[in-house]
Amino acid sequence: MSQGYTRRMLLAFVLLFASGCAAFSQAGDGLPSWNDGPVKSNIVGFVERVTTAGSPDFVPEAERIAVFDNDGTLWCEQPVYFQLAFAFDRIRALAAQKPEWRTQQPYKALLERDTQALAATGHQGLLTILAATHAGMSTQDFRNSVLEWTASARHPRFNRPYVELVYQPMLELLNYLRRNGFKTFIVSGGGVEFMRPWVERVYGIPPEQVVGSSGKVKFEVAADGKPVLLKEAEVEFIDDGPGKPVGINRFIGRRPIFAFGNSDGDQQMLEYTADGSRAYFAGIVHHTDAAREYAYDRQSQVGKLDKALDEGTRRNWTVVDMARDWKVVFPSEQRR
Amino acid sequence: MSQGYTRRMLLAFVLLFASGCAAFSQAGDGLPSWNDGPVKSNIVGFVERVTTAGSPDFVPEAERIAVFDNDGTLWCEQPVYFQLAFAFDRIRALAAQKPEWRTQQPYKALLERDTQALAATGHQGLLTILAATHAGMSTQDFRNSVLEWTASARHPRFNRPYVELVYQPMLELLNYLRRNGFKTFIVSGGGVEFMRPWVERVYGIPPEQVVGSSGKVKFEVAADGKPVLLKEAEVEFIDDGPGKPVGINRFIGRRPIFAFGNSDGDQQMLEYTADGSRAYFAGIVHHTDAAREYAYDRQSQVGKLDKALDEGTRRNWTVVDMARDWKVVFPSEQRR
Repeated sequence: MSQGYTRRMLLAFVLLFASGCAAFSQAGDGLPSWNDGPVKSNIVGFVERVTTAGSPDFVPEAERIAVFDNDGTLWCEQPVYFQLAFAFDRIRALAAQKPEWRTQQPYKALLERDTQALAATGHQGLLTILAATHAGMSTQDFRNSVLEWTASARHPRFNRPYVELVYQPMLELLNYLRRNGFKTFIVSGGGVEFMRPWVERVYGIPPEQVVGSSGKVKFEVAADGKPVLLKEAEVEFIDDGPGKPVGINRFIGRRPIFAFGNSDGDQQMLEYTADGSRAYFAGIVHHTDAAREYAYDRQSQVGKLDKALDEGTRRNWTVVDMARDWKVVFPSEQRR
Repeated sequence: MSQGYTRRMLLAFVLLFASGCAAFSQAGDGLPSWNDGPVKSNIVGFVERVTTAGSPDFVPEAERIAVFDNDGTLWCEQPVYFQLAFAFDRIRALAAQKPEWRTQQPYKALLERDTQALAATGHQGLLTILAATHAGMSTQDFRNSVLEWTASARHPRFNRPYVELVYQPMLELLNYLRRNGFKTFIVSGGGVEFMRPWVERVYGIPPEQVVGSSGKVKFEVAADGKPVLLKEAEVEFIDDGPGKPVGINRFIGRRPIFAFGNSDGDQQMLEYTADGSRAYFAGIVHHTDAAREYAYDRQSQVGKLDKALDEGTRRNWTVVDMARDWKVVFPSEQRR
């Protein structure tokens, strides 16, 4: 065996070992679905700064509050907010027991899939549909209807249960933050009772860490002596826009140091987090990927991102370019 | 050495060992301020049943939600709710900058300690005092005023800071539950922003696990570009009576399995917990100890306990007789 040969072997071994380490380190950061680049560096850099004892930006574990918008940030929101798809599906499911709906608007339009007639019923039509599907029942019955829907309904384009259309990189990010002592919360314009039945299983976020919009609920003791909570057809709180910092204050009572959103409805939550009194992370998911998901921003009816994109760009918040920064979008792509 | 002598030695050793074990077990249960008896047995028995894997009453850790009223359950509420004492003290502290208060009711009566004139201003007078001390400022400024008060004000009878007038047996119970995988929450008629600044340090309960009454809060971006939350003089939510199960549903989103209260304002929270669908613990603190604390129930203006006591007795809920069941009341007694 010549000495040259041995040195080549040694070199090969060193290279193999080094590339093995690189692969290990890449898998080991817990963010394998994020492409390397400024966005991933911002995330990891921030977490390292606030969790390193002695760092000027160190934040004690109890104060590491991270808040995430849901629609368009943790799961898909196109072609319509999934809670609206739930409401439409519920109307169809309940129609058999409601023959009068066949001739009443907005039900008639919805059952006949007449989009134009449905749109013509406007805001009032939408409120009628929401009241029929979200009120006049106990919180427990509503919960059951949500669980039934998440188990059976499928997204029109991806043909998968809606709860599978969550973003794999964000699931990894939630876990990464929790491993680093963060407490993760959802702060969503969506209904709090619509999210709570499934978020623990899907995101690892318990119901008590979900802030959302809500309708009024009334306590009653039923005829059989059982206490029940009844959902009423009156809006109580809209957790959107300036309502988000208000909701954070009401439910969490601490200012977050980490916030992620994707639309103008998240702007005030991001501003509240980015107040500058200490280290913070403000992130925006920019939907730029029509091939794997959807591409939309300033002109979109759903998840409009315009003013928050300008402020985020101006203030150097972290803007995720979905097409560039995400190796995979949905968990199903990983299993291929 | 006769055999009899040896046997006596052995017996003495066994007895010594056994009593040593008993002493160890008593200290080791983490509830040293609770006298042995049915109340302590109920608590420990319940916790053992729901935490023992394989027990028919087993409850998974994530669902072990425990809720506690605050005033009269975790800390003293006499001679007036402590939050009212805070409001009165604040008026006195702010009076120097408000010379007009010297001639205006209800301020005049309060500053002159004219109880009769103050009472004559009625509900409207009280609302005026609450508005002057709880609204028209940022949430951060209010927080600072609460912390200043908890550090300086003293209870008129016990001459100690109010936050030292918490119940030692309940502190032990909170810790005992948490060690057994429970998540502990406060569900109080008191103001959520009044409690959050100090409950973590005093009870080990983080701000995000406090449900309480609240006033409206408004998000604004100040002239310097800083986002602020302003407290407004409008009631938003009263977390009392039937409001307690509503508040639990809104903030926690799960039905508790363990609830402790002390007044009729806790009745619906106890009923909601004790719905019978699974193992539950419903506890009531009965103030029976005029010597160490206060004795009051059916006729009291503060913390009236009447209907809930009847229901609790009828349904075999656990009623703490403070004089009988608590070895010490306040932490300061321990240090003597």
